[in-house]
Order: sequence, then structure tokens, then C-alpha cells
Amino acid sequence: MKKYQRLAQQIIDQIALGVWLPGDRLPSLREQVAHSGMSFMTVGHAYQVLESQGVVVARPQSGYYVAPRPVIRATPAPVKVMRDEAVDINTYIFDVLQASCDASVVPFGSAFPDPRLFPLQQLNRSLATVSKTATAMSVIESLPPGNEALRHAIARRYAQQGMQVSPDEIVITAGALEALNLSLQAVTEPGDWVIVENPCFYGALQALERLRLKALSVATDPENGIDLTALKQALNDYPVKACWLMTNSQNPLGVTLSPEKKRQLVSLLQEHNVTLIEDDVYSELYYGRERPLPARAWDEQGMTLHCSSFSKCLVAGFRIGWVAAGRHARRIQQLQLMSTLSTSSPMQLALVDYLATKRYDTHLKRLRRTLAERKQQAWQALHTLLPAEVKIHRSESGYFLWLELPEYMNASLLSEQAIAHKISIAPGKMFTTGRAWDNYFRLNASWAWGEREQQAIVTLSHLIESQRKA
Amino acid sequence: MKKYQRLAQQIIDQIALGVWLPGDRLPSLREQVAHSGMSFMTVGHAYQVLESQGVVVARPQSGYYVAPRPVIRATPAPVKVMRDEAVDINTYIFDVLQASCDASVVPFGSAFPDPRLFPLQQLNRSLATVSKTATAMSVIESLPPGNEALRHAIARRYAQQGMQVSPDEIVITAGALEALNLSLQAVTEPGDWVIVENPCFYGALQALERLRLKALSVATDPENGIDLTALKQALNDYPVKACWLMTNSQNPLGVTLSPEKKRQLVSLLQEHNVTLIEDDVYSELYYGRERPLPARAWDEQGMTLHCSSFSKCLVAGFRIGWVAAGRHARRIQQLQLMSTLSTSSPMQLALVDYLATKRYDTHLKRLRRTLAERKQQAWQALHTLLPAEVKIHRSESGYFLWLELPEYMNASLLSEQAIAHKISIAPGKMFTTGRAWDNYFRLNASWAWGEREQQAIVTLSHLIESQRKA
Repeated sequence: MKKYQRLAQQIIDQIALGVWLPGDRLPSLREQVAHSGMSFMTVGHAYQVLESQGVVVARPQSGYYVAPRPVIRATPAPVKVMRDEAVDINTYIFDVLQASCDASVVPFGSAFPDPRLFPLQQLNRSLATVSKTATAMSVIESLPPGNEALRHAIARRYAQQGMQVSPDEIVITAGALEALNLSLQAVTEPGDWVIVENPCFYGALQALERLRLKALSVATDPENGIDLTALKQALNDYPVKACWLMTNSQNPLGVTLSPEKKRQLVSLLQEHNVTLIEDDVYSELYYGRERPLPARAWDEQGMTLHCSSFSKCLVAGFRIGWVAAGRHARRIQQLQLMSTLSTSSPMQLALVDYLATKRYDTHLKRLRRTLAERKQQAWQALHTLLPAEVKIHRSESGYFLWLELPEYMNASLLSEQAIAHKISIAPGKMFTTGRAWDNYFRLNASWAWGEREQQAIVTLSHLIESQRKA
Repeated sequence: MKKYQRLAQQIIDQIALGVWLPGDRLPSLREQVAHSGMSFMTVGHAYQVLESQGVVVARPQSGYYVAPRPVIRATPAPVKVMRDEAVDINTYIFDVLQASCDASVVPFGSAFPDPRLFPLQQLNRSLATVSKTATAMSVIESLPPGNEALRHAIARRYAQQGMQVSPDEIVITAGALEALNLSLQAVTEPGDWVIVENPCFYGALQALERLRLKALSVATDPENGIDLTALKQALNDYPVKACWLMTNSQNPLGVTLSPEKKRQLVSLLQEHNVTLIEDDVYSELYYGRERPLPARAWDEQGMTLHCSSFSKCLVAGFRIGWVAAGRHARRIQQLQLMSTLSTSSPMQLALVDYLATKRYDTHLKRLRRTLAERKQQAWQALHTLLPAEVKIHRSESGYFLWLELPEYMNASLLSEQAIAHKISIAPGKMFTTGRAWDNYFRLNASWAWGEREQQAIVTLSHLIESQRKA
């Protein structure tokens, strides 16, 4: 992040925290230069960015003012997650996912990375080991909270990041999805308000619907992540019980919150006594030097349930995830016992064996490099082949690109047409209860780039052009 | 079943179906002898049994009359499955199950059969095969509705029983528990009435609580199973949406409904347009000549969702079950996609491999024989060692015994005391929302009988005696 960007973000965060209120005059360029130690140029650039984003308003001869009212995109009236509406969304998601199962479809809509990037041979070796060592009693050791050696291995990975997570608070689940669902259920009652992002992982909306919770969708954007000002407003205005967020490589946007923003997020939620359910399945897929910490790292009060899995970075088919649930661990075990009983014992044992080989980090390193290369390739192709009006948002992590069509176009229509041409995409409609993202779609860029992919983009390009207004 | 028992049951069923109404005079002994072709003795015996059960009333010089009002044990007022109450039950179940995980505890309270009875070596061989043959794309083939070869293998087992179940209506789930939960969710809305048995598998009560459904508990007894008269009454009095029953080797009682009773059950539910969710996880564990059919076999209108698994008869740790969901299959796949996404791919593949070896039936044959022997052994020990007032209900299937203490005794107290002595049992309280079964407990008789088990029964006997009134 450049200096001016950091300053701009800092000011945005300060506004979010109420340091600057709507209508407040910000420090003048001169004052800012004086106490930031930055150049006049840098500060000027930062203020221009803020102005272009509508965060501040420039008044000639007077200075920069915080925009009259921060853009509160938290839905002001209750967003009822209507059952029918949700079923609609589900059918939608279902169709997109079903399409991804068809080997003849180019799976740009898939949520999973190319499974060929996973260390199949080594995992199979671990399976073979389990087939020699599993005993009749292994199953009992796999009951909630899950295999002890596996919980220890996970706790040790937290420790590598400098986080203190006890194996005793970890519960092994059927992927992160079960972890998130159980977490949400553990801390809410039907009818409670829950904050989600807009756009957000569709699984969150489905979970809310299933548990009869009410959604407050807080604006999130590809560059800065969740709008803390809006979040604060939502927390002030509603008796919110929990907040379900992706802090690293958010799905579908790809944005990762800055450490400072994570800290502010945690402190804001603690102030309002709101539990954070942190969906952190992509954090191993960073492109930078260091794995970003989850918000949980800043939580000293145990109000964050940190959910993750091996499904996006090691093996999708095992269906093994976990939640570091703090004081909710026991309740979550009970809830699991009621719904799926436990995850499969050989899968837990195979992971224990694999993690003991110490090859995980080598695999991850290669995986990250490949994903970064493939995303670059996909971006290049999209940039070259798609109509110029299509904006491509691209983050420095994960394997998703977030594409923005001109506002009058419709990505759901594009999706339908694309499926007819054996191409799947994930239209914005999947990621929201409203209509805000009707002209956006998510593209999975984890696939090896070849003739088929190139041709699929040409086809998408034609389909997009066919929506162009005469 | 003896002749007189069959006649008694027949009359009970007729009363349930409204052939004989409360207050009706039953055919005299002489008439019954004439049109049943049975002996005077047999008919007399049957009538005596009915009288002792309170089903009929004998009036001197007049004959036998249907009891003035059939004993409607369907809870007349809404049984609110209170959240707190349910959490209580869960804590209870949780503790019992946790205790069973402790290798130093004699696991009479366990719900699973001795895992040493499962064909570990052959299953491990299948795992080893999967470790050689799994490909990167296997995971996609495992997404809902689940691996096609596995669904075919299951459909073929239905076909062996003469049932027509298409692989297309089968959805692979995380054990039968997920199948049952998804089925219930597929056909109900929060607030709906659902019929369960009393006593019933605690998973049913937990599912109802989780989905905010209202329970109507219909009386079920160890000899005859669900009371069809009470069921009919409940269906007449309440707008019931679904009925969750175990028709074969009911948990905890062990009772299996007769074919005729299954037929009547299906027709009764169809009459009221009520979906049957059939929990059929123990049906492979019959002791008789033939595997009993599920009620689903009599359902020609597709109103039965038949749920089962491999967890009780082949392998607990794989966590693979299924539902034959008829027209609800698609909805169930959607619900699964929202909660656990899918079951693990290697586990599905390992089962496909194992089932292809054709060793399943040989294993089952041996398993059934061993369970029957062990239950006999356990019964013998209990019969010899427990105080004479303890009644042992014993069915001709599965591995549970259902023990009845004198009414003033308390099995929950016994359970607490037993745990302190490293013995778990499953007290009646686990199987009901009310207090009807406070003096009952379920005992898992699948364990190899040895000194430890014998000693545990002696301890239980002492604990029971300590509850005896002075």
C-alpha cells in the first residue's frame, strides 16, 4: 500500500471510529503535513482520493470536510430474509454449482480451486497409512470435539502465527461451512439481528435463512473491505447479536482488511458486546510475504469464533474444517452431536498423518505461487478480450476476480446465457439479498489457462457485448 | 409371535383403525372361535391379554367391550419443546456420550455397537484401494446427491428386498442423522406439528428443537410399537406435517412393527396427507429369517422419506448415510449444500469399493449372529444379577435391552451414580420430553461379555438396591 493510500485509509478508519464526525473539517493539508511527516504531495493525493470516493467534500477556500452523512449502506429497514427469496437464491446457487460438476462446463463459477493443485499423491499416501493403522476404536477418538492430534496440529499452526489457541477450544467440523453454521447457532436465537457483508459469501445468507435470523447487510468494497462507519451505525441502531465476516481474501471481493482495520473491527464489536464469527478459509492463499493474521489475533476477550478448513488449500474432498470457539466450544460440540454427530474418522487420521510429514508448508508455497500466476494470466486474458467497459477488481490473494459490468447490464442474464455455452460464472445476485450487485460477477481464476479458457472468455465477451445498449 | 398374541394385536390394530370404537362390544369368544378358526383357549388367552393391557373391559355375563376411551397417550396439549429443557436434554445426552468415549468406562450407555464387530481389515483394504485410485476430480463426483456408484449400490440393496428405489432419489449424507435432519427440514416450517414416538430416539427431539417444531409424542411400547389408535387421534386433532418413526428395531425399545401394522401406518398417514420420515438404521440387525421391510415398501404415493446408514452395521467412523427422498430429493440436496456441502469423497469411494467385494452380506450374517448371542448373554447376566423387580424388555433384533425399574425408582439418578463407578447407561429421560420414562434405561448389549461387564452389572444391581424403599 502506498503512503497516500495508507493515509486515506487511516482517515476513513478514523471517521468510522467517530474521530471525525459528518460535517467535521479535517486537518488542513498544511496541518496534516506537519503532524504526519508526509510530503505535501502525498497528503494532497490522499485527500483527492477521499474526495473521489465521496468520503470527504472539498469546499473552496475552506478545506476538506467529512461528507455530510457517511454513506450508511447498512439496510436501514429490516432486511427480511424471506424464505421464498432464499429458496430462490439457493436454486440459483444450486444450479451454478451443479453446472460446475459437469466436466464439459468451463467452471469459472466454481467456489473451489482447481483440485489438480492439491497434493493428491501425498494425501493418498496418508490415506494408505491410515488404512494400515486405523483401529476399531479410532472412531471414538474422532467424536466431538474431534481427534486430539489433529486439534493439536491446528493449534500449533496458530502458534506459528503467534496466536494462543488451545486445542481444547477447537472443534473439528465438516468443512468451515459446518463450523460457521454451528457458531452462528451457538450465539443466536431465531429473530436475532446478524451483520453480514454486502456482498458476502452466500453460505452466510443461507445460514441466516435456515436459522431464521435477520440480516443487516453492511457495505463492503473491493479496495477497503467492510465500511466501518456503516458497521458502527448498524451496531448503534440495532441490537445485533453476531457479525459474520471474512477478514482475509473476502469472498467474492478478494479484499483483505489491514491489521489496523482488524484491530478497530474487534474493538468496535467488543464495545457493543457483539460476537465475531470470522470466516477465514482463504488466509493461506495470500500473495505477500506473510500470512495475514485473522481479527481473532486482536481479540483478548474471547469474543471471536474463528472458522477455517483445509478445503480451499489442501483437499476439498475430505470435508474437514474447524472452529476455534473459545468458551463456546462445548455448546458447539453439543450442536454438532445433534446434527451430523462427528466428521469421519479416517479423514481426520489422514490429515494428522499428512500434517506430520511437514510437507504442508512446501505445498502451500507452491500453491500460492501457482494461484498468483494463474490469476495474472486470467486477468491478462480478460483485460485483453473483454469489452473495455468491464472493470476487473483484482486482489493480491486467493483465486477470485470480481468483474463489474456497466450498471445497466445484468450478470444473471449473462450467467444463464453462459451456461448455455457451457461456461459457468458466479453472478453478483448469489452474494446478496438485494439487487446491488446485479451487474457484477465472480470468476474463478485458479484453472490452468489454455485454449478452452481463452475461448470461453471470447464467448463471454460476445455475450457481454450483446447486452450493450444500441 | 404366538397365535393368541397375533389375535390380540389384530384386535388392537382394528381398534386403531376404527373398526371397533370405544364402548363397542367385541365378538364373543364363541363368535371369535367360529370365524378365526382358532381354539377357544387361544381366543380366551388373547382377550385376557387385551384386558390386562386395558384395551378391553370384561363385563360379567355380557362380554368384552373396547375400553371406554382408547388410551390416548398423544400429549393432549401442545408439548412445547422448550429451548432450555432441550438444552438440558442435550447436556444429558452429551455427558452420557462423553462418558462412552472414555475407554475406562463400561459403555452400556453407548448408542453404537462394539466397533470390533465391524470388518476393519476389509474396510481398510478398501481405503487402501481408494488411496491408489482417487483422482483430483473424485471430489466433484461426491457432491450432492453423492457418488453415483454408491447410490446405485444402495438402490440395488433396496431392489434385493423387492423395493423400487431409483438411485436418482437417493442423497448421500453424513450418517442417517443428517439424512433425518434434512428430511425434517425439507417438509416442515417452524411451528409445525410433528409426531414422534414416546419414547423415541433423542436425535428426533433435538432435531425438533433445532428446527423450532412442536412435538406430539405418541405412545409406543416394547411389545407392540406405536399405538395406532393414539396416532390416529393425534392426526385427527392436530394439523400434523410429518411423522418421524422407527419401524424396525425401534430405539430405545427394540420393537419392530408387523408388516400389517406398517401397512396400516402408511395408509393412516396417507389419509391425513402426512409425510413419514422413516428412521431405519437398525433393520439389518434382525434375528429372524428375513430382513423386515420398511414402511416405505407399502407406500405407493411417495410420501415416505426412508433414512438409513452404514454406521450401525458396517462402519461408524465413515459417517455415511442416505435418504431415499422421492420427490424431495432436490430440496434435500439444496439443504445439504447449505449446511455441510457434502460428505467426504474418499469415504464414499471406500464404501463403493467395499460393497463391490460382495462381502457385506457375509459380514452382516455374522454380525447378526454375534449380536444375538451377546444379547442373550447380557440378558442372562442381568436376569441373574439384577433385583427381581427389574423388568427386562428384550426384542428379537438389534443390541439394546430396555430395562424397567420399579416406578418409584429413578434411572437418571442411577445413571449419575453409575458414571461415578465408570459405568454408563442411557436413562429413559434421554428419550422423551416428559417424565414418563424416568424409571427406565437402555442398555447396550453388543459388548463381548467378560469379567468387567459382569462386575459392572453387580455394581448396577447394588445401586438399584440402594434406591429400594425401606
